[in-house]
Amino acid sequence: MIEGAIRIGKVVDKVGKVYLVGAGPGAVELLTVKAHQLLTQAEVLVHDALVNEQVLTLVPADCDCHAVGKRGGQASWLQADIDQLLVNMCQQGQEVVRLKSGDPFIFGRTTSEIQALKAAGCDFEVVPGLSSATVAPLLAGIPLTDPVLSSQFTVLTAHDLEAHNWDALAKLSVLVILMGGRNLGEICDRLVRHGKRPETPVSIIRWASQPQQHIWDGTLLNIAQQTKGQKLSPCIIVMGEVVGLRPYLQP
Amino acid sequence: MIEGAIRIGKVVDKVGKVYLVGAGPGAVELLTVKAHQLLTQAEVLVHDALVNEQVLTLVPADCDCHAVGKRGGQASWLQADIDQLLVNMCQQGQEVVRLKSGDPFIFGRTTSEIQALKAAGCDFEVVPGLSSATVAPLLAGIPLTDPVLSSQFTVLTAHDLEAHNWDALAKLSVLVILMGGRNLGEICDRLVRHGKRPETPVSIIRWASQPQQHIWDGTLLNIAQQTKGQKLSPCIIVMGEVVGLRPYLQP
Repeated sequence: MIEGAIRIGKVVDKVGKVYLVGAGPGAVELLTVKAHQLLTQAEVLVHDALVNEQVLTLVPADCDCHAVGKRGGQASWLQADIDQLLVNMCQQGQEVVRLKSGDPFIFGRTTSEIQALKAAGCDFEVVPGLSSATVAPLLAGIPLTDPVLSSQFTVLTAHDLEAHNWDALAKLSVLVILMGGRNLGEICDRLVRHGKRPETPVSIIRWASQPQQHIWDGTLLNIAQQTKGQKLSPCIIVMGEVVGLRPYLQP
Repeated sequence: MIEGAIRIGKVVDKVGKVYLVGAGPGAVELLTVKAHQLLTQAEVLVHDALVNEQVLTLVPADCDCHAVGKRGGQASWLQADIDQLLVNMCQQGQEVVRLKSGDPFIFGRTTSEIQALKAAGCDFEVVPGLSSATVAPLLAGIPLTDPVLSSQFTVLTAHDLEAHNWDALAKLSVLVILMGGRNLGEICDRLVRHGKRPETPVSIIRWASQPQQHIWDGTLLNIAQQTKGQKLSPCIIVMGEVVGLRPYLQP
């Protein structure tokens, strides 16, 4: 923060900046050092619904906090309004932390915010965070790669099944699926229809890294049946032979 | 660390533990809070060759440090010897930080170390880190996903080209390739032969997040020619339409 900002009429003689920051999967200890530092100094915090409450307590007592989550029963924020809020705060000379769960550049809608900031001539910086796409498998004892079983992994969202080439996906060794809980049965069916081994191991990890973390294990053939009636969201689904390493790699 | 360890004859009455920790891409500020904390308290540090020197200075002055990198001109460590070193240190009652560049479960050979630790009854914990597979594109202004251009990305190593189904890879929207510098020309050729658009944008990011970071931009058709004779390793190669967003998303 810049000391000694001087207001001359309506001109604010202090340069604002927006940090588009990844909060990681939730736990404070899984923030980056940089994200932690920015939060403890934030003048303005603009955060999503899924960000952990403990992370939100890091900001100074006089920090101006805005929850702009698009989830829950309340009226949702429009992306255009979030973009405008960031621009306004920056133009008022504030240091703004725009906190997003996971990593800002993985399913984060950060592009819209950057384009608004650039159009308004605002200074900004993107700060990476741990994506639950990689952390959830790790905490469950699933390596995404393995010298024998997997030299590649694919991360996808599955709320729109038609967005993908399932024939290609079925030929890959490891799939990590975000937002796939609702379509789980159909995802498994499609992969098996396109030639994926029905016995391919599957783990579903809900609330990764948080105290209420829960994991279900199964196969492409039986995981949908096994989790029937359970609330899965927010979850990460991992599919592939590496999932079978889980019992051998947990403490 | 446990205070007041008591030695009775040869019995060490202090329980050791090995933390298998991701160091992220290199910068200290991109460590996790947990990794930073573990390093500042480490009794023993066992680290790879690619870990940044600044990160290594975080450990206490009396920390017992072991460089076990498999790179460079010197005699290399065998994985079995690294495994045994970790077991020995743990059995001596030490708190060991086993620091790996990036994330321990992404191309990290962590499985071997865990299996050795479990076989010896040693306590251990895996601590995630930022993988350069996601950080390098972010710092270059390339989002791996985009509401229009990409609902999925694939991370692969390409030192063994035969390990992959190139027909499937050519149908995916974004590829992030590690250890692909030496095979760059052949990778581009294969993707084009399997139907990938030759004008698909490609960026190559060397030494991501470090002061000597360098980026080359091109397409599947011309990037190999453009970087001919350059030393590319260690680099991340990103291919896909999202790479074209780069000029619009940088400060």
